[in-house]
Amino acid sequence: MLENMTTVFQVKCGLVPGRPVLAGVSGGPDSLCLLETLQQEGYTVLVAHFDHQLRPDSDAEVEALRAILTKKDIPFLEGKGDVLAFAKSKNLSVEEAARMMRYTFLFEQARAHGAQAVAVGHTADDQVETVLMNFVRGAGLNGLRGMEYRSLLPDFDKNLPLVRPLLDVWREETIAYCAANNLKPYLDPSNESLAFTRNRIRHNLIPNLESFNPRFRDAVLRTSKSLAGDYNTLKEILESSWAESVISEEADMVTLYAEKLTGQGTAIQRNLIRRALAHFGPDTVDIRFSVMERATEFLSRGRNGQIHLTGGLRMFREGERVYIAGPGVVLPTTSWPQMPETTITLTVQIPGQVSLSNGWQLVSEKSRNPVLDMEQAVNNVNNYQAWLDADTLPEHLEIRARRPGDRFEPIGMDEQSMKLSDFFINEKIPQRARDAWPLICSGDTVVWIPGYRLAHPFRLTNETEQIVYFKVSKPGN
Amino acid sequence: MLENMTTVFQVKCGLVPGRPVLAGVSGGPDSLCLLETLQQEGYTVLVAHFDHQLRPDSDAEVEALRAILTKKDIPFLEGKGDVLAFAKSKNLSVEEAARMMRYTFLFEQARAHGAQAVAVGHTADDQVETVLMNFVRGAGLNGLRGMEYRSLLPDFDKNLPLVRPLLDVWREETIAYCAANNLKPYLDPSNESLAFTRNRIRHNLIPNLESFNPRFRDAVLRTSKSLAGDYNTLKEILESSWAESVISEEADMVTLYAEKLTGQGTAIQRNLIRRALAHFGPDTVDIRFSVMERATEFLSRGRNGQIHLTGGLRMFREGERVYIAGPGVVLPTTSWPQMPETTITLTVQIPGQVSLSNGWQLVSEKSRNPVLDMEQAVNNVNNYQAWLDADTLPEHLEIRARRPGDRFEPIGMDEQSMKLSDFFINEKIPQRARDAWPLICSGDTVVWIPGYRLAHPFRLTNETEQIVYFKVSKPGN
Repeated sequence: MLENMTTVFQVKCGLVPGRPVLAGVSGGPDSLCLLETLQQEGYTVLVAHFDHQLRPDSDAEVEALRAILTKKDIPFLEGKGDVLAFAKSKNLSVEEAARMMRYTFLFEQARAHGAQAVAVGHTADDQVETVLMNFVRGAGLNGLRGMEYRSLLPDFDKNLPLVRPLLDVWREETIAYCAANNLKPYLDPSNESLAFTRNRIRHNLIPNLESFNPRFRDAVLRTSKSLAGDYNTLKEILESSWAESVISEEADMVTLYAEKLTGQGTAIQRNLIRRALAHFGPDTVDIRFSVMERATEFLSRGRNGQIHLTGGLRMFREGERVYIAGPGVVLPTTSWPQMPETTITLTVQIPGQVSLSNGWQLVSEKSRNPVLDMEQAVNNVNNYQAWLDADTLPEHLEIRARRPGDRFEPIGMDEQSMKLSDFFINEKIPQRARDAWPLICSGDTVVWIPGYRLAHPFRLTNETEQIVYFKVSKPGN
Repeated sequence: MLENMTTVFQVKCGLVPGRPVLAGVSGGPDSLCLLETLQQEGYTVLVAHFDHQLRPDSDAEVEALRAILTKKDIPFLEGKGDVLAFAKSKNLSVEEAARMMRYTFLFEQARAHGAQAVAVGHTADDQVETVLMNFVRGAGLNGLRGMEYRSLLPDFDKNLPLVRPLLDVWREETIAYCAANNLKPYLDPSNESLAFTRNRIRHNLIPNLESFNPRFRDAVLRTSKSLAGDYNTLKEILESSWAESVISEEADMVTLYAEKLTGQGTAIQRNLIRRALAHFGPDTVDIRFSVMERATEFLSRGRNGQIHLTGGLRMFREGERVYIAGPGVVLPTTSWPQMPETTITLTVQIPGQVSLSNGWQLVSEKSRNPVLDMEQAVNNVNNYQAWLDADTLPEHLEIRARRPGDRFEPIGMDEQSMKLSDFFINEKIPQRARDAWPLICSGDTVVWIPGYRLAHPFRLTNETEQIVYFKVSKPGN
């Protein structure tokens, strides 16, 4: 009877042997069983009782408990409160008000007496009734997994846990346990009435369900355990994939790594998007499936652009980033190099350094250690650096924004020029970034598009004698 | 009324417009609604009806359907079977027997007439009743997510899907739809009796549940959708982490990458272990939580060893691998070098090659391209290769198994020798592998332990003039 309580207390509830535990004790069989098992396992138990003053016999209940505890020589922390008045003043149901006052008292006492946890006597029957009620109300995985052996109730205490060691023990077992240990529990007369929902569940609904499955209670308990495992697995995964994917969360914008997001399966993508949307308030939690589907479909296209999601929230994809932004939010441009308002002459500034917008800069040098960078140089592989043949370069260079009619002859596309606007589209340069994208030019000739491509005529060849090196960067990034 | 059926048919059910669909039609409001919406969306519908011959009025039902279809000029595939006799012969419940005979017929007809899918008229009410019954029976996530819009029933057909386009449509809506479209459904008199479980659920249990939550049916439908999403997410994750972790699945052993397994959170680890255990038969599906906990605790220690899991199944960890093996299974040793029965003399075999057990071999050379391997050589970093100072080596070398009392002076531990048995323990050499681990020795002096460490006296130094190179490998691996 009540096997493995050592493991339950230590592993499932995380209690440290020898440190005091505060037990919320009503005097019924569940809480007396809790008290007795805690003591038998060697914990110092502080007993606390809260009198809700809801029933005419509540004094009798306190006295019955006092008698038991006096015999066992256990001190007894006593609280009481006018639950009805509290419920009225806070516009709460009587049940909610009773719960709030009771837990407030229990956690106050636990703090005051240095207890490691508040323990309560919820049984497997309470678990079944909780899960059943959550099912009836339409809960998801979180509600259907039921109560936990150990949990935090931050409304009452941010650190001290609430533990429920009897979640796997049926109410009948606690009654038998009390009888075997010569404990005389106080039997709450209101348990016998069908006035409260909880009792109607116990005496009417569950018997009805048992007519379909005589082992209904076992079945629900099994379900709750199985779903608790699934819940933990999901939580673990979603936490880690969220941590990997998120770049920043600001008041009106969540920024994510596009690749991390699209590298997940669609079901996880949906969860990550739902979490990003939840950032904008609880109204977004019940997002329709079609919205999530639209979002994952948009991401799967792999193209820059934007879509409306729901309630003014939009999703943008630009290069390596995905933004989810509130109505009217302007996306940041700080992640790109952008031109200031006017063209900058470069001729006299090689070697030298010029400032662009948003903290970006262009550095130019006449030559550079040819050994260290030879491989990069020959292949021009780092898109924000370029190595050019100095002798092919026009004398007058400038850095400017695009102009209508600009054309470009990308390296590798020998002697073939294309419209600069087509190049921008092909390379998926964000639409908003195009007008002010910095271009190294000489008059109408585009020499280098930082971040993208060098023009063919200025590439390094076997005949190159002198190298000009450009680098566009944002120091500190 | 019945909005978005285009999306439901194409996206949720995956139907291709224009290709024929076989609809299972009873003549009730659900199936007439299904037939009508399919036709309005332009699908060619093949109507199939299966007469279960369970009710005295089943002929009347067929005639009523025939009348409707004749008026609409739709051909009509008719099947019938003696469900009671089939149930008896196969020892099935009448419901199960009816389902088997009906789907067998529907899929036969679908194949025979080139339909892309079998469509049936399950409604949101059927979904709620299914999920409720699964809850009462103690289902996990898989059962509580309910029926799918599109699924495969491999017992009936491995390729043709079953689709359920009306899963989001309430029964009342199908009745209203029939009325609006001038369709006169046949109302099954047995629906009105409480003789069958399904009807008792509908007329007794659900009204009881609605007394707790008047929107109970909406709530359950919402739950099922939410859990379906969670199920898909979990499935996606577990499939991919399983594929990453598994090395092989043989009849009596599953082999996994230790690092892939331990790199997951414990909840996923538990799922992977559960899946590995399921490999050994359905009895292992209900593994107790404590078994999973023992397994993850064992893995978290990161040490070689073994534990018993359940029912004779054991988990072994050896180096980079985790094995889950049936009773009495001997782990493979082919992944280690092992000595044959006798000592092998090496002196005359440098340069040369000798065979060890299991296809492993030792290659020795007098010297080796000193440039290419210099870094490896100086640091002796590749554990299955060693570079030694030829002039320090004794004349007589041999390769042998360990002997009691062997000591070893590992490189780096200047002038300090230790018991070979302690070295084996420190390095976590699998217990089973120790007795036959090959050692390069000279009499009592251990020169090199392949896979682990060179002895200090034989290391390369600045004075080294000639190098001896050893390599232990299993060609083809």
